[in-house]
Amino acid sequence: MLTHSRTIRIEWGHCDPAGIVFYPRYFEMFDACISALFERATGLTKYQMLRSHGFSGYPVVEARARFLAPARYGDDVVAETDISAFRRSSFDVRHRVHNGGRLAVEGFETRVWVGRHPQDANRLKAIPIPPEVIACFTRG
Amino acid sequence: MLTHSRTIRIEWGHCDPAGIVFYPRYFEMFDACISALFERATGLTKYQMLRSHGFSGYPVVEARARFLAPARYGDDVVAETDISAFRRSSFDVRHRVHNGGRLAVEGFETRVWVGRHPQDANRLKAIPIPPEVIACFTRG
Amino acid sequence: MLTHSRTIRIEWGHCDPAGIVFYPRYFEMFDACISALFERATGLTKYQMLRSHGFSGYPVVEARARFLAPARYGDDVVAETDISAFRRSSFDVRHRVHNGGRLAVEGFETRVWVGRHPQDANRLKAIPIPPEVIACFTRG
Amino acid sequence: MLTHSRTIRIEWGHCDPAGIVFYPRYFEMFDACISALFERATGLTKYQMLRSHGFSGYPVVEARARFLAPARYGDDVVAETDISAFRRSSFDVRHRVHNGGRLAVEGFETRVWVGRHPQDANRLKAIPIPPEVIACFTRG
Repeated sequence: MLTHSRTIRIEWGHCDPAGIVFYPRYFEMFDACISALFERATGLTKYQMLRSHGFSGYPVVEARARFLAPARYGDDVVAETDISAFRRSSFDVRHRVHNGGRLAVEGFETRVWVGRHPQDANRLKAIPIPPEVIACFTRG
Repeated sequence: MLTHSRTIRIEWGHCDPAGIVFYPRYFEMFDACISALFERATGLTKYQMLRSHGFSGYPVVEARARFLAPARYGDDVVAETDISAFRRSSFDVRHRVHNGGRLAVEGFETRVWVGRHPQDANRLKAIPIPPEVIACFTRG
Repeated sequence: MLTHSRTIRIEWGHCDPAGIVFYPRYFEMFDACISALFERATGLTKYQMLRSHGFSGYPVVEARARFLAPARYGDDVVAETDISAFRRSSFDVRHRVHNGGRLAVEGFETRVWVGRHPQDANRLKAIPIPPEVIACFTRG
Repeated sequence: MLTHSRTIRIEWGHCDPAGIVFYPRYFEMFDACISALFERATGLTKYQMLRSHGFSGYPVVEARARFLAPARYGDDVVAETDISAFRRSSFDVRHRVHNGGRLAVEGFETRVWVGRHPQDANRLKAIPIPPEVIACFTRG
């Protein structure tokens, strides 16, 4: 399946007093990497996707990460993201972040496709992922 | 073992365009909850602990969370944090975040106690957790 | 006029590799302080205000801050916020953050009251601040 | 003087429930833009600069920004940064962020060059900016 790879500069503001990435920042990166992966697959930014497919996002229901080596400001890490499984209204994502050629962080997420609840616009509910979105990941 | 509980107001700036907490923010909360738990146990802020115990922090080596119900700005969530196991130089943490009486997020982290590397002050290495710190969690 | 004062613990994750608050975090605090000030004045959280007064927020059009003394993790700073002027659809805010009794940060913001644009729900436009909201700040 | 220009993708996680950039994120961008400008001028990342020039950073003492037009996730903004004045131990920075060809944000910062205090390694004090650093900005 489609993999998206991007180089991310670790910034001063991503790091904590120990001089290494404050780990919630990796989850921010993961989220941006998924948007980039979908954009690569569909040709649409997340903003355009929400408007054209009438949904409200793909929030996380489960996230897991292993932090194997630290990264610090000035490092350029390479993040690789792919979707390991699509289900009716959820999907699994895998992230691998390398720093200086070494696996630094590995992440796994399950996300759910949501729309506004028909009875209450302030609530979200799971809805099916459009087949044409899934098709963008599998076609040659 | 000691449990620390705190109420956290979800702010506008914690939330994303879907109006719910942007999930990396939960990991920020987890980190703050651990500092608060150690402060409750030892009577020292993290800054004071680093100075008095000569270490550099307790970065995460593994993190996992399940997101069961959303929270949005204006909600007051209650986060409960405890340490489920201490080992020689690492420990396991558990977080439970309730929103309106309902379990909203559950988190598990493994953290490692680190100091400056003796050969290179810019690197970190695992060091033993001081027994007097661990004792603060177990005494009546 | 009404002043809101709150104590804020500086967390590890607010600080940069120099060990002091990464300054964008102060603007995050300012935003949370304004929500708290409005809640104190109106009795409504920001979420409740948006629903009951039919607007979309009060984004910043101008922000300014002076950073006079650093704060680091473990410090408890005291932030005081008040509104120095209300105009038809904008207002001026002043923040003063003290650390250990000393003025550490001073902030000034101008914010505009906005609603959805009548021709395009994805755009925002300035709308008048409801007089009953302003009244909450001035009555005895 | 040298200007650094970079394109920045606005991410979902940079935006608030109104769907536009949560403004403290612009200050995070400003900070990253300054690191990039110094790297362009000196050939060194901030990490390398701190090590080779023996200082601790350049924290902000004054920051100001005007927000003229919103940006939302999926937008690619262009940030231009230059240093408008160098003084003995401080400097002034100007940022201009364009979105779709239109000036969206304008920022001004004064930053001070700091080192560890000789009497207390936990305090910072202003020190002179190395002339060879300044020279990198002015030579042809």
